Amino acid sequence: MEVLRIHHVAFAHSSDTPVPRLLQEGLGLEVGHTEHGEGFVERMIPVGDSYVQLLEATGQGVVQRFLERWGPGLHHLAFEVPDVQAGVTSLAAAGAPLVDQAPRPGAMGTIVAFIHPSAFGGMLVELVQAPQMR
Amino acid sequence: MEVLRIHHVAFAHSSDTPVPRLLQEGLGLEVGHTEHGEGFVERMIPVGDSYVQLLEATGQGVVQRFLERWGPGLHHLAFEVPDVQAGVTSLAAAGAPLVDQAPRPGAMGTIVAFIHPSAFGGMLVELVQAPQMR
Repeated sequence: MEVLRIHHVAFAHSSDTPVPRLLQEGLGLEVGHTEHGEGFVERMIPVGDSYVQLLEATGQGVVQRFLERWGPGLHHLAFEVPDVQAGVTSLAAAGAPLVDQAPRPGAMGTIVAFIHPSAFGGMLVELVQAPQMR
Repeated sequence: MEVLRIHHVAFAHSSDTPVPRLLQEGLGLEVGHTEHGEGFVERMIPVGDSYVQLLEATGQGVVQRFLERWGPGLHHLAFEVPDVQAGVTSLAAAGAPLVDQAPRPGAMGTIVAFIHPSAFGGMLVELVQAPQMR
């Protein structure tokens, strides 16, 4: 199991918080890519070799449920690995409970799998496999 | 204002959660550096060009207070910038409330300043200036 880098750090927020504008005006960070998920909009902001991922709740779904429970905050940490399937197999063999039993398509052509927070003491971790070598 | 990279992502946890061991066994990530703060131990785990920072509460202090309020979870996001003082000045001019009015020494020879979470919609952001060019 090899982790290449922090792929992204995700922050969950509601529609009435202009986080993209705040990050641009305050830190010069600009949204590079936007996708729409079920009940949320996902914005990827390049920072060095990684991204900040903004998850804006736009309806019912996992982001809205997170906000109802915790309020706005850091949501998960995604590690880039060469092979998500190998990572999931290795973690399952080590006893880690999984959210995604098998890798599935993520944003921007990636393949992803979420590991249950209980595997890492409460930290929600995602594995991400890039669509090609960078 | 220029952000070079994600310097680290911090995760707060209690002493009874063996997060360093879990990350090592599950993902092959190893602690590279350990420092002691007021009421906490800070462990830096290199991941690509960034770090995962584990903040273990060992007594009263900011980490313990975070845990009492929220439980274990992602605590803050640190951006590496070339000049923390310039970053603080720029953010203050943009109206961002600060935790640290002036930069101060951080771990591993860095200079750091925390920006108040209300500046970024609830996300606690730290600026980090490396001790020298890497």
